[in-house]
Amino acid sequence: MYDLLISGGHLLTMQGEGVGFVEDGAVAIDGRKIVAVGPRTTVEANDRARQAIDATNRLVMPGLIDAHVHSAATIARGLAQEVETWMGSAYGPLIRHASEDDAHLWTTLALMEGIANGTTTFGDYEYPMERLVQVHAGIGNRAVVCQGVTEVDWSQRERWIDEGWRPGEPAPLDPAVGERELAGALAVFDRWHNHDDGRINVLLGPIAADMVSESLLLRCQAEARQRATLIHLHVAQDPRENTATLRRAGLRSIPYLDSIGLLAPETIAVHLSTATEDEVRLVAAKSGRMACCSNSIGIIDGVVPPARLFRDAGGSVALGSDQAAGNNSHNVFAEMRATAMFAKIAAGSPLPLPAWQVLRMATIDGARVLGIDDRVGSLEEGKDADLILLDLTRPPLAPVVMRPARNLVPNLVYAETGANVRLTLIAGRIIYRDGVFANVDRDAIMAEVASAVTRFEDAADADPAVTSLPIVELTRSGKI
Amino acid sequence: MYDLLISGGHLLTMQGEGVGFVEDGAVAIDGRKIVAVGPRTTVEANDRARQAIDATNRLVMPGLIDAHVHSAATIARGLAQEVETWMGSAYGPLIRHASEDDAHLWTTLALMEGIANGTTTFGDYEYPMERLVQVHAGIGNRAVVCQGVTEVDWSQRERWIDEGWRPGEPAPLDPAVGERELAGALAVFDRWHNHDDGRINVLLGPIAADMVSESLLLRCQAEARQRATLIHLHVAQDPRENTATLRRAGLRSIPYLDSIGLLAPETIAVHLSTATEDEVRLVAAKSGRMACCSNSIGIIDGVVPPARLFRDAGGSVALGSDQAAGNNSHNVFAEMRATAMFAKIAAGSPLPLPAWQVLRMATIDGARVLGIDDRVGSLEEGKDADLILLDLTRPPLAPVVMRPARNLVPNLVYAETGANVRLTLIAGRIIYRDGVFANVDRDAIMAEVASAVTRFEDAADADPAVTSLPIVELTRSGKI
Repeated sequence: MYDLLISGGHLLTMQGEGVGFVEDGAVAIDGRKIVAVGPRTTVEANDRARQAIDATNRLVMPGLIDAHVHSAATIARGLAQEVETWMGSAYGPLIRHASEDDAHLWTTLALMEGIANGTTTFGDYEYPMERLVQVHAGIGNRAVVCQGVTEVDWSQRERWIDEGWRPGEPAPLDPAVGERELAGALAVFDRWHNHDDGRINVLLGPIAADMVSESLLLRCQAEARQRATLIHLHVAQDPRENTATLRRAGLRSIPYLDSIGLLAPETIAVHLSTATEDEVRLVAAKSGRMACCSNSIGIIDGVVPPARLFRDAGGSVALGSDQAAGNNSHNVFAEMRATAMFAKIAAGSPLPLPAWQVLRMATIDGARVLGIDDRVGSLEEGKDADLILLDLTRPPLAPVVMRPARNLVPNLVYAETGANVRLTLIAGRIIYRDGVFANVDRDAIMAEVASAVTRFEDAADADPAVTSLPIVELTRSGKI
Repeated sequence: MYDLLISGGHLLTMQGEGVGFVEDGAVAIDGRKIVAVGPRTTVEANDRARQAIDATNRLVMPGLIDAHVHSAATIARGLAQEVETWMGSAYGPLIRHASEDDAHLWTTLALMEGIANGTTTFGDYEYPMERLVQVHAGIGNRAVVCQGVTEVDWSQRERWIDEGWRPGEPAPLDPAVGERELAGALAVFDRWHNHDDGRINVLLGPIAADMVSESLLLRCQAEARQRATLIHLHVAQDPRENTATLRRAGLRSIPYLDSIGLLAPETIAVHLSTATEDEVRLVAAKSGRMACCSNSIGIIDGVVPPARLFRDAGGSVALGSDQAAGNNSHNVFAEMRATAMFAKIAAGSPLPLPAWQVLRMATIDGARVLGIDDRVGSLEEGKDADLILLDLTRPPLAPVVMRPARNLVPNLVYAETGANVRLTLIAGRIIYRDGVFANVDRDAIMAEVASAVTRFEDAADADPAVTSLPIVELTRSGKI
């Protein structure tokens, strides 16, 4: 007897090379695993079920994968726009007023947003991670986390300036800091990797080539290999990174990373914003894993990340919502639409990155990039039951046309906002249904959020250094 | 005594040059008009109210303006993607199987989608309009409609082909068709203009310079001037239009329209997809009204419409969702995000079209383009009460930060999907609240939609001409 039978909806299984469409299908679940998937009549004939979910007029598909998220940045949501250099002129000066004690609240908000919009897996890149991974574990979503590893001690910034360093230049590295941080990241790995039968996995996350020395990059790689896990690394994310590696080795960031062997199959390359076409092809060939954050990079830099080229060069592309300061949401539907649209605009043609390719990035390809495609990313016997149900009776998914052509997938990618997500199931458990989270006391969280926002406002507002920021000036002049 | 008092929320009045932010504000309404707007304590001190809406934790702002919509295309939602020429290779061959008898259902779906996502005014461009304008009138939204005027009789297409015409070329014009169509459009004007004290207005809509002769364009202009209404005209929407005017007058479309005096203050120029920079500046100087359909033009053509340049050249830009076949939604939040993002990407910079400018396009500037800014577009004493309430306690609008910078407007433009719209008030009447439409029997409509979809599927599926369309092939191969 099945534990749970979801039947009567259309399926996008994402099996095979396309989207694996099944009309009037069913998914049967035992414990956390999918044990049957296919046409409803076939699955129903196999066995009965303890619990049933009627998916008539619903689309059933794998949960979405948000492969690159800085979940605790939600306190600065919408505060890093309309500036030339977002980190120096907006995000940096503000975020230092966010207390570490409140970070779990921002992560909770980010996860609530993602889950309500169909995300089941978060590739969370944060620091420190211990309390935040508890949030992932408690809410019930899947997560592939890492605690960032850096050798830069930003608390020394004023001293560097006294010594001649200029903002925007590569920051001085401190090997002692790196050692301490790597130890902390490994401790997170030891405590959390493979938690709840792999619902939580841990990667190693050296931040980027300009903030981690060659020896520490290689240490991270060795430690990752020893643990059979992956490296989550920002690659070619800004000009400063190239400046640093040119100074260090006379090479731009990507050729430098290649020269030391870091462009290897265990490396997830995030962003590739400044990469040349040849560099994109090199990363696709050597690592094959890219996390693409279209809305974030679009807002912050005005740049189209090279998702299309990376895919064409044979790599797997995952989508990521990055951070709420500049994006400003954790919504994979928004990432799908942007990724498809940006590719068309960049090419001046309606043809690049059709809907089905982008939908694969948000599901099975995203799982591949995070190294969990043996477990999730498609509706398939033996995989964990991470899936979502969407209401097909409401725009922009309605009207559903089936013949002579189906409009489901284009509408999902080019139009759906996430508002039609009705149910989110992770590892066989319902963690969100019709606006209600199984494991979050929403009212209690929002009350805590309100207090924490006030703490942030009080701290930031008292800092004379922020009064001249462009976004503060926009506020004063009534533009925002 | 006020009829209605909405108090306790933050306001974006859109008065002045920015967004007109008011913390803890109130809006008082008598009948259909706003009679007071400002800080809550001031408005509440003036008078009491028969009915009150508590807007605590809500954002109160003008309803959004969707200035260019083909509402009856909803039946073909998502069926015009992934092709080089959307009209000839996807939309055209499919839409001819949509029955005119069902068009009111597709318009109903389009309006339900828009209203649920905060749109209060629709610039609906359809043919025939009579039954559809009844839908606008009945649902209760504001509309600025026009019945398209063409001189092309597409039913003669096979005959033209026999006579040597090739698809993609300008179609032959038939003055008799034009006379009949203009008469029909004027009849719609006479019946519906200024309906319900101006809730419904009517414009004249010659389709485009390649489908209407010079004499009929000038007739439309004269009739519009006589009636003190506007012209709603596609301008520079595709290469065929330039081909036609080059043949006709040796000029590209925009210089041609200028040469005959059509680029005048009463002309709303839609799209400008093929316009050169100088042509955009010319239209901005002479007409000053542009309707920009970012998602539609992005999906269909891979082109960024020149919203930024038009605005910089001194024109007013409105946003439009165009048609659901390629967009694929009627959601002004999606248009705001796309318009802001596309401008940044096109410029390779995060600075163009900041959030506040785009929010003005969706409100007060949109009203100006449609010629109704004396009546709506801002929360202002004496204007009609067209406004929406959004929930500020949910992502992506939460957390709300007020000091030292406000994040409301960036999150509204770059992140909100419309899912936080809780209430839509039009001309002082609540027409949508918490998922329920005041004047639509949703279940009855969806039952009718289901039958109408089947009729469309049966008709289209029986047409051998559609079996080789790219989107049908994508369906067969399991890609959509």
